[in-house]
Amino acid sequence: MSRPSRSWICSPTVSSESRERAAVEDRAQRFLDDLRDWLAIPSIGADPEHHGEVARSALWLADELRRDGWPTVEVWSGDSQGGSYLPAVHACWPAADPEAPTVLVYGHHDVQPVDPLEAWEHAPFEPTVVGEQLYGRGASDDKGQMLMHLLGMQAHLAATGADAPAVTVKLLVEGEEESGSPHIAALLADHTDDLACDAIVVTDTGMFSRDTPSMCTGMRGMADAEVVFRGADMDLHSGQFGGAVPNPVTELARMLAALHDDDGRVAIPGFYDDVREPAAAERAAFARLPFDGKAWLSGPAGGSRALHGEAGWSTVERLWVRPTAEVNGISGGYAGPGHKTIVPAEAVAKVSFRLVPDQQPVPVQRAFAEFVAAHTPEGIHAEVHFTGSGVSPCASDVDHPVTESVRQALQAALGTEVLYSREGGSGPEAAIAEALGAPLAFLGVGLPDDRIHAPNEKVELPLLHRGAEAAALLWRLLGERRDELKPGP
Amino acid sequence: MSRPSRSWICSPTVSSESRERAAVEDRAQRFLDDLRDWLAIPSIGADPEHHGEVARSALWLADELRRDGWPTVEVWSGDSQGGSYLPAVHACWPAADPEAPTVLVYGHHDVQPVDPLEAWEHAPFEPTVVGEQLYGRGASDDKGQMLMHLLGMQAHLAATGADAPAVTVKLLVEGEEESGSPHIAALLADHTDDLACDAIVVTDTGMFSRDTPSMCTGMRGMADAEVVFRGADMDLHSGQFGGAVPNPVTELARMLAALHDDDGRVAIPGFYDDVREPAAAERAAFARLPFDGKAWLSGPAGGSRALHGEAGWSTVERLWVRPTAEVNGISGGYAGPGHKTIVPAEAVAKVSFRLVPDQQPVPVQRAFAEFVAAHTPEGIHAEVHFTGSGVSPCASDVDHPVTESVRQALQAALGTEVLYSREGGSGPEAAIAEALGAPLAFLGVGLPDDRIHAPNEKVELPLLHRGAEAAALLWRLLGERRDELKPGP
Repeated sequence: MSRPSRSWICSPTVSSESRERAAVEDRAQRFLDDLRDWLAIPSIGADPEHHGEVARSALWLADELRRDGWPTVEVWSGDSQGGSYLPAVHACWPAADPEAPTVLVYGHHDVQPVDPLEAWEHAPFEPTVVGEQLYGRGASDDKGQMLMHLLGMQAHLAATGADAPAVTVKLLVEGEEESGSPHIAALLADHTDDLACDAIVVTDTGMFSRDTPSMCTGMRGMADAEVVFRGADMDLHSGQFGGAVPNPVTELARMLAALHDDDGRVAIPGFYDDVREPAAAERAAFARLPFDGKAWLSGPAGGSRALHGEAGWSTVERLWVRPTAEVNGISGGYAGPGHKTIVPAEAVAKVSFRLVPDQQPVPVQRAFAEFVAAHTPEGIHAEVHFTGSGVSPCASDVDHPVTESVRQALQAALGTEVLYSREGGSGPEAAIAEALGAPLAFLGVGLPDDRIHAPNEKVELPLLHRGAEAAALLWRLLGERRDELKPGP
Repeated sequence: MSRPSRSWICSPTVSSESRERAAVEDRAQRFLDDLRDWLAIPSIGADPEHHGEVARSALWLADELRRDGWPTVEVWSGDSQGGSYLPAVHACWPAADPEAPTVLVYGHHDVQPVDPLEAWEHAPFEPTVVGEQLYGRGASDDKGQMLMHLLGMQAHLAATGADAPAVTVKLLVEGEEESGSPHIAALLADHTDDLACDAIVVTDTGMFSRDTPSMCTGMRGMADAEVVFRGADMDLHSGQFGGAVPNPVTELARMLAALHDDDGRVAIPGFYDDVREPAAAERAAFARLPFDGKAWLSGPAGGSRALHGEAGWSTVERLWVRPTAEVNGISGGYAGPGHKTIVPAEAVAKVSFRLVPDQQPVPVQRAFAEFVAAHTPEGIHAEVHFTGSGVSPCASDVDHPVTESVRQALQAALGTEVLYSREGGSGPEAAIAEALGAPLAFLGVGLPDDRIHAPNEKVELPLLHRGAEAAALLWRLLGERRDELKPGP
């Protein structure tokens, strides 16, 4: 896979003074007005009292799509088994040519809760422009980036002068992403034909920084587990019994201590067997990112005191392309004020794993259960519980024509080289790609300081404009590379 | 210290058909009536609403002592600094000979709480006789055994026909033992002269079993500590940060895992430096105790699943003569239902150490703090807190004339050999011995199934009678060995 780093110079068919840019700029004021309307709807999916607002948000988007001329617009809120979910919006704008490839854009319109409310400088649902920044819950994650695609389609049509896009463009804007997309499998199963596509463009991610734009090339998966170590049936007096019976907290600590070796590697046998190392081009691009460890520790990493992790990998690699085992919580015995001199009856640890391609959650859970069994001493009864079947990791093939085209489009729109980055978190993307059998690429223009999930969320309006331009260019580029996307029979 | 095991055959001066026994039996009915009266007073020291009852219990005992003819009876409830404490009862009955040695009997009249009340077969403060057992809170711990000494003194005087005991006998019956004797140091400092003695007889312990009586020869001490490991200033998202910053729970687990080596020994450097191994005679006697590990696990040890502990020592030795490090509680991160995928900001462990002679709590705490520092990795801020200066361990010298005499008296009263045992728990005994500069011996007739601190506490009335007889014999034996107890000038 080693070959010279590709130049960021744009394809001959796009330039930084594109018709797409002019079309975006013509529509910038309407775009802002529309986005403010949408952001004013408090579509907080986590709060049942706001579920009416999530529905209103879906209907607002459906109306907007129809006003823009999208031929097919639907709102989905139930599955074929009779279950209901928070409304998702689907739209489709077919290419004139029925043989053109189809691209599905995925994102969401539900937003995170807003606590603590007093920490917001502007009310979260009263969108406010300050300079080039638009403040409001959902501005970056993900309403701003979703509406960017509507603007992109308008710009694409205006720039090409056509009535239909160069490729068939579908949208899936779900309403449960911030709740962990609990119904995505049912939605995908019910709408496989509606969502059928040749590639998926995910727009729910960010770039490395304003000055060093990057394109996301993957997300980590996740598996979780809860381990219970039991000793006696009750807490025992540590004077009368201490030293002669096993202590479940001590034994759990010994198991957790064994979970990593001295090089910071996860010590579960077979844990790394399915790990695929990133492409050389990706690692080379990661190495060129101007990551400032000290600033990261005191800033985003909340006052963490030192970098830490698996030997042989940089911090961004540890976060993006290496799997982890983290203890998310532990409890056992007496944790109140003062002391209670007991040998606790039980201890519980919550552990989660972040996974990278091609690890899968269920085999990792199984390997962990075996690891726990191997580290359960005589006298301890161990149980391992899993709350679900986890989330699979996903990654783009950086040599795939769609990935290459997204990067080209972003480079043209931003006027600079776009490096690679990834997301350390987890989402439904792998499930969507697997259900639809299509490759993934990421087109996202969020920034690390957009404060998504936190008070004072904002988005950079110029980046939404550049993102819309990139989307418009992308449809043109993909139309030009249609033969690479739709392999012949 | 190795010499042939001493025969249990009684000293020539005491016999199993003693006058003491007859005197005890004459007074058995009155003793039962009195004990029921005292047990009806709910002197629960832990509950402020019952502090009036603790005072009533002290006054009841003082009246009883006066009725029995003790020349000096006082109730103490405040120190010279103006502080107050739950009332302690002091009494003194001087020997006729002012040169006779003085023995202080220590015990307590406060009792444990009674929750869960519904688990009691008889109301805890309505003392009930069933066969040879008397049920009620405090029956064994410690009112029954304290009143046993009043009966013992009556029997001693009746058996010897004297107006005064053969040795000066003092009592200290405190009211805060079940609360950890928080004011014992002040009480001892204020009353050093009142309590001055040549030996201390502690009556607040038990025997190995009904069929295998034993004499306690020591108690473990205690030191406690709380360890806080801090990472970032806040919980961090395990996707965005996991794998690149230290996890305080994982690091705390690694420290706790290092606390014991694979042989179950505490791995703190220097931890065992001051440990004095028990006398060969004690170890030999321990080895003769018919300890049934399986029955102990399923019974007293609350369904513990396996014996465990320091290699090279038996279970009773692990409990009595070996020090321990136990994690009493741990907490960190998210411990509620489901999962929260975080790198926790901090983790806390409560640790306590049981100590054996000649370990002292403060040096152990200091060594632990150094151990924690040595096991704190870069990126973790560690704090170690101590809630107090701990409790010192104590042990009897089994060759001391008082210890020998207690054993002889018990053997005569019980008509069988008395082996050695110890208590794994901790109490104020070492502090009392140190403050008064006197050796300790233990005269206790509780049984492991007396359910002290639990519902349905009971005492075996015949054992209280034998204990009273042993006390009566003890004063006679010590009078005979007075020259060994009061070394000349």
